[in-house]
Amino acid sequence: MSTVSFAEIINKRKLGLEHTPEELQYLVSGSVSGQLADYQISAWLMATYFNNLSKKNTAELTAFMRDSGETIAYPENLLVVDKHSTGGVGDKCTLITAPIVAACGGHIGSLAGRGLGHTGGTLDKLESIPGFKVFISKEEIVKNVASSGLCIAGQTKNICPADKKLYALRDVTSTVDSISLICASIMSKKLAEGIKALVLDVKFGSGAFMKTIEEARELAQWLKEIGELNGLKVQALITDMSQPLGRYAGNALEIKECVEILQGRAFVENDIDFYSDTRELSLQLAAHLIYLSQIAPSVEEAYKLAHEKLQNGEAYSKYLDMCHNQGATKNTKLPEAEFKQTIKAPQSGYITEINTEALGYACVDLKAGRAQSGDLIDPANGIEWHFKKNQPVKAGDTLFTLYSNDSQLLLPAEDKLLKALTFSDSPGTNYKLIEGFLT
Amino acid sequence: MSTVSFAEIINKRKLGLEHTPEELQYLVSGSVSGQLADYQISAWLMATYFNNLSKKNTAELTAFMRDSGETIAYPENLLVVDKHSTGGVGDKCTLITAPIVAACGGHIGSLAGRGLGHTGGTLDKLESIPGFKVFISKEEIVKNVASSGLCIAGQTKNICPADKKLYALRDVTSTVDSISLICASIMSKKLAEGIKALVLDVKFGSGAFMKTIEEARELAQWLKEIGELNGLKVQALITDMSQPLGRYAGNALEIKECVEILQGRAFVENDIDFYSDTRELSLQLAAHLIYLSQIAPSVEEAYKLAHEKLQNGEAYSKYLDMCHNQGATKNTKLPEAEFKQTIKAPQSGYITEINTEALGYACVDLKAGRAQSGDLIDPANGIEWHFKKNQPVKAGDTLFTLYSNDSQLLLPAEDKLLKALTFSDSPGTNYKLIEGFLT
Repeated sequence: MSTVSFAEIINKRKLGLEHTPEELQYLVSGSVSGQLADYQISAWLMATYFNNLSKKNTAELTAFMRDSGETIAYPENLLVVDKHSTGGVGDKCTLITAPIVAACGGHIGSLAGRGLGHTGGTLDKLESIPGFKVFISKEEIVKNVASSGLCIAGQTKNICPADKKLYALRDVTSTVDSISLICASIMSKKLAEGIKALVLDVKFGSGAFMKTIEEARELAQWLKEIGELNGLKVQALITDMSQPLGRYAGNALEIKECVEILQGRAFVENDIDFYSDTRELSLQLAAHLIYLSQIAPSVEEAYKLAHEKLQNGEAYSKYLDMCHNQGATKNTKLPEAEFKQTIKAPQSGYITEINTEALGYACVDLKAGRAQSGDLIDPANGIEWHFKKNQPVKAGDTLFTLYSNDSQLLLPAEDKLLKALTFSDSPGTNYKLIEGFLT
Repeated sequence: MSTVSFAEIINKRKLGLEHTPEELQYLVSGSVSGQLADYQISAWLMATYFNNLSKKNTAELTAFMRDSGETIAYPENLLVVDKHSTGGVGDKCTLITAPIVAACGGHIGSLAGRGLGHTGGTLDKLESIPGFKVFISKEEIVKNVASSGLCIAGQTKNICPADKKLYALRDVTSTVDSISLICASIMSKKLAEGIKALVLDVKFGSGAFMKTIEEARELAQWLKEIGELNGLKVQALITDMSQPLGRYAGNALEIKECVEILQGRAFVENDIDFYSDTRELSLQLAAHLIYLSQIAPSVEEAYKLAHEKLQNGEAYSKYLDMCHNQGATKNTKLPEAEFKQTIKAPQSGYITEINTEALGYACVDLKAGRAQSGDLIDPANGIEWHFKKNQPVKAGDTLFTLYSNDSQLLLPAEDKLLKALTFSDSPGTNYKLIEGFLT
């Protein structure tokens, strides 16, 4: 296919027409081989922003993207599952869900990503554990999942090169926010994992990419259909990210939270268990995965089993297995920040709105997150919050504790955090962690 | 401005927001310097297809594009004008209009283009005159216009490099048909000519880029406003290109038609003067140009003057001056094709519809036109038609004469031409050459 005929493919997208599979295959192979010029790809991407691909075309694109690189192949008798979150602030559920699933007899093999912008990434969190290796071979991933029931690793270099290429172009051409392209990007990588079932945590609210429930539901529906058209079993949870999850955002701090939850502990301040939402969401995700793993006859039964394995320490034991498998140094402490600073409430009232995205960007200011891929982060840095939405606070109450090895980073983060809060005289609308399910 | 911040400019276009002049200037200067990546430019172009620039932004973009290269500067006291046609089949009016304007005491300095696709180009027509040089220096253009009142030349290499760059990208990214980008492309080049007034011939119908009157009117209105926002006086004619203009399409053949019209001759077959539409449109265009040149107090008076100068041979004399100024060999014959072939009507009836674009592509088949820029053409080749819309024809009547130096090119053109005609039992809607004016 020549330059001229790819212009015709761009034109079809511009007019909102259906592509043939061959056209999408050429887009993918031409992107990876470099045969297709970046300027033509990016024109197609922008046209796709305005005229989404059909679900059929999106599923085809997804499959070609999966097949653009290597894929993981598990033994046929291993029903491997995974979860995927669309990203949030303080979202560390994978690190609790995966050990629970393994403790229940399931097999979870997750290729996770790094944090970028306001959202954190599972790989960064794991790398705050001294010695923990996230980049291991395909063979090791398969071995760990088969032997211990869980493995969370970084994508190998050759997974979905088409996605890497297209994402890099989308990033600089303002074409990230296309539902077809989002679905193809997410699902191609999940399909390359060799899994048979997937549970999605699609978030909405101020800390999520999708700001409204409707957008989140639409994305969940798309992701589910694109997965299913490619032979994957998919269920989705629609969850509220209008406040950060749990107690901490920041890599080592989030690991600390996970370990304490896996150890069966709570963290109570002002009669609120700050671990309850992380714990509950992790259990719900685990329940759906266990159900899809055909270990329990219903999600409800699966939830009971998950709860039991979390309470009796078997999940924690699986977490330790994973750390051991991936080289974590035994009995070493997580990194801790040298400087701490509290932020007090400037007034009394109910915190009815939290700009959770701004909270994520305060983590970036603290070098607990990245503005751009490649930025260095400090695993010890992060934020602890001491309130939940609609809780009454008094002027002078501690709202946040900032953690940093560089005291100069504290002030800009503090300013951003106070601006992120809305104080009202009465509580706002009720917060509901899990808004719905797509099963 | 960095890659990241141009992504924000793309995003503004994507959302349909107003650009600052600085953003557009960066687009233009970054395109020409190569500082801006093609993949970012093409994403912006596609976003502009979906979200047109405002007229204000289009005018700003146009000015920055004009200023991206060299411009022609005439002496302040010279009121130089030009015409521009949006392109058609058999449209050779510039070659008659310009001599008329010069004969009336006006000054017309035109930078013309080559033919591409179904439309012909003035430069190709002039180059069929033995010895005629279309590429001359800025200084020669100014000298010719000042001394003889007319010059038609090719764009110098350094005129509007931003347009060259953007057009090349538009061509391969299916973003040619954006009204903002069309206007900026046309008007930046016209503004670079250093003219003070412009008359547009905006065509609609089967042989034009704009298929409907409404589209043509919209484009004319845009072009007029973009010109006026940049200090140019602009008038427009909306003209019908649902049949080819005059008698011939093909470079030397069209020159022959022009010369005969300038010599005051007609060409009558079946009681129809096949030169009448070319002559009338050329006179109308000339009348508007003469009026804008402040030579006549009204377009009507200007038309009378134009008609007089055409009839008395002064316009022809100006044509000969131009040929002489630009190196044409004296008393040399135009090239003539070795092979001729007539095409007969396969049935009787009224020809109510002509796919004029297909007729233009038959010229491409005959190598009288180009499929792609850079293609070689034969100046002698072309098509003569022996009917006008709604004229009754009998089976066996001659419809076309094909001219070619390569007999092998005749058959494919013949097939295309017969398919381009619709025969009916009764005449169709009336044909009106000039549908309206924007003054």
